Amino acid sequence: MKLLEDRIRKDGIIREGNVLKVDSFINHQMDIKLFEEMAKEWKRLFADKKINKILTIEASGIGIAAIVAREFNVPVVFAKKSKSINLDDNNFSTKIQSFTHSKIYDVIVSKKFLSPEDHILIIDDFLANGCALLGLTDLVESAGATVEGIGIAIEKGFQQGGKIIREKGYQLESLAIVESMNAADNTITFR
Amino acid sequence: MKLLEDRIRKDGIIREGNVLKVDSFINHQMDIKLFEEMAKEWKRLFADKKINKILTIEASGIGIAAIVAREFNVPVVFAKKSKSINLDDNNFSTKIQSFTHSKIYDVIVSKKFLSPEDHILIIDDFLANGCALLGLTDLVESAGATVEGIGIAIEKGFQQGGKIIREKGYQLESLAIVESMNAADNTITFR
Repeated sequence: MKLLEDRIRKDGIIREGNVLKVDSFINHQMDIKLFEEMAKEWKRLFADKKINKILTIEASGIGIAAIVAREFNVPVVFAKKSKSINLDDNNFSTKIQSFTHSKIYDVIVSKKFLSPEDHILIIDDFLANGCALLGLTDLVESAGATVEGIGIAIEKGFQQGGKIIREKGYQLESLAIVESMNAADNTITFR
Repeated sequence: MKLLEDRIRKDGIIREGNVLKVDSFINHQMDIKLFEEMAKEWKRLFADKKINKILTIEASGIGIAAIVAREFNVPVVFAKKSKSINLDDNNFSTKIQSFTHSKIYDVIVSKKFLSPEDHILIIDDFLANGCALLGLTDLVESAGATVEGIGIAIEKGFQQGGKIIREKGYQLESLAIVESMNAADNTITFR
C-alpha cells in the first residue's frame, strides 16, 4: 500500500538491529486517518470473506483493529496478555514467546467471545517472527472458529513469520512488507 | 447517556465487592457502534473546546479513544505502562497506583508527542478512585500542555475519583455514573 510505504519512508526511524520505529503514527501516537485508509484497503482485499468479528492483541493492535471493525461493521475482541492469574476454564489460552522482552507470556480470550460460528479477521500492527500471530490463530482454532484472513500493517519480510503463516494457507495481507533496511543511511526497501 | 446506561443494565454483570463487568461490549469485546455514539456525545459536550489530540492509557482505553479521535479528526496518543526499563529523558513519566492489581507502576508518554501547544481530551473506559486519571493529567501538565476535558465511559459515583477530578476544575463528562449497584438482585442505579 503506497500510502503506508510513503509514510514509513517519511516518518519511520531505522535503528541498528533491524529495528523500525513507527511510534509517531502507528503504535504510540496513532494517525486515525491513516488507519481509515488501511481499513478500506483490507475491506477491499477481504471483500469475498464473510467476517463477523475482528481479533487483535493488546496493546498496539487495538487502535487499528477498532477502525477496521468500524469499516467492516463488526465488533472487536482483543486478546489479553495475562500474568497467569486469570487462567481458568472460562478462557481460551495460549503461550507466546516475546523476543523483544525475551520471555514467554500467556495470552487469553474469554470463551464468551469466540465460538464455532465466528469468522475471524485477525489484525495486528507488526509481523516479524510470527509468534504473536500463531498464538492468535491458535486461540481462534481452539474455539472451533474460522480464521478468514490476517491483516498486518507492517511485515518484516526478512524474518520468517510471513513465510510460516502463508505456508499454513492463511490469506495474509500485509500492507507494507519491508525487504531490507539500513540504519547507516536510513534507507528502506519494500517488497 | 441513556444508550450506555441501558446497555449496562442489559449486558453488565454485577459482582460482589462493587465489581461491574462490561467485558462483552466495552473492554474485552468492544461494540464499535456503541463507541461511535459515545464519541458523538463527547463531541457535543466538548463542542466549545479546541482539541487537537486525544490521550488515553493502554490497554482498554485505546479502542474507545481511536473512535473518539476519528469523530474529532485528531490523532490519539496512548500512555504506556512501563516496567521501568524505558524510563529516560525521552519520556514524561508518572506513577499510578493500581488497586485492582495492588501495585504501583510507571506510566510514560514520549516527549515527542506532548508539547505546550497541545490541547488534550483525555478518554478512558472507567473512573473509580481516580488514580489513573490523575496520572494522565499529571503527564499532560508535565508537558505544559492543556487538559481541555476528560471523557469517561463509566464512572463509579460511589468512589472518590469523580469528586477529586471535578474539584480540581476539570470538565469531566462521564457518560454513565453508577450511584449504587447490588450483586444480590443484579440492580444498578445511575446518578
